[in-house]
Amino acid sequence: MDCIFCQIAAGKIPSVKVYEDEEVLAFLDIRPISDGHTLVVPKRHFGTLDECDPDILANLVCRLQTIAKAVQQAAGSEGYNILCNNGRAAGQIVDHVHFHIIPRNPGDGVLKKWDHYEYPEGKAEKLAEKIRQKL
Amino acid sequence: MDCIFCQIAAGKIPSVKVYEDEEVLAFLDIRPISDGHTLVVPKRHFGTLDECDPDILANLVCRLQTIAKAVQQAAGSEGYNILCNNGRAAGQIVDHVHFHIIPRNPGDGVLKKWDHYEYPEGKAEKLAEKIRQKL
Repeated sequence: MDCIFCQIAAGKIPSVKVYEDEEVLAFLDIRPISDGHTLVVPKRHFGTLDECDPDILANLVCRLQTIAKAVQQAAGSEGYNILCNNGRAAGQIVDHVHFHIIPRNPGDGVLKKWDHYEYPEGKAEKLAEKIRQKL
Repeated sequence: MDCIFCQIAAGKIPSVKVYEDEEVLAFLDIRPISDGHTLVVPKRHFGTLDECDPDILANLVCRLQTIAKAVQQAAGSEGYNILCNNGRAAGQIVDHVHFHIIPRNPGDGVLKKWDHYEYPEGKAEKLAEKIRQKL
């Protein structure tokens, strides 16, 4: 059991917990990007979102709703992001699926980079077709 | 019905769809931050994640798993982010809860800003206590 989140879930590595039940654990990120930055994880090990057991995920996301609201209220923030990074290329560092709850306030500069562009004509339709073929 | 995503769900505004069932719609973001950037929404209107009906959310997130994997494969990307912005302060522009699926590749510079820090001693514990009180 080399996975750090499995060890946290098993109580072998300490964490600052905010919620725990049989399947789900929520604890503060020790390297926050805003105050109250919380991680919500299934206790059972899954690498990425698409690998997670659907029943466990469905239960987790309902807990995530409640925890996110509580984090926002406790942090006194105006909003929050839910972020789930899948794969190294997407910034996933621990290979155990986890949802970040990130309290946000206007002009805080957190998660600022967000460069939009537009598809050239016909490209969106081609991409959508490719996606539908993979479903 | 002023909500643009309600109008897209009702077929009154066109969109490039990648998935649709009775409760869930997925379509390409017309202002992508990476190729294949997809939005997944409940057809019924809810403002933010914490306001969403839990049963609808549980179903949606299971569709989200499958769609995310298909988007990643179709975009030929190494990873993907799931992002759900709640409130203006968090970058939510359309007040109808939606999940972004953002295909990612190494060094693409998308969602780059991610400035970590550390809590001073005792702060994490105090924050966690405040969150638990709100649950």
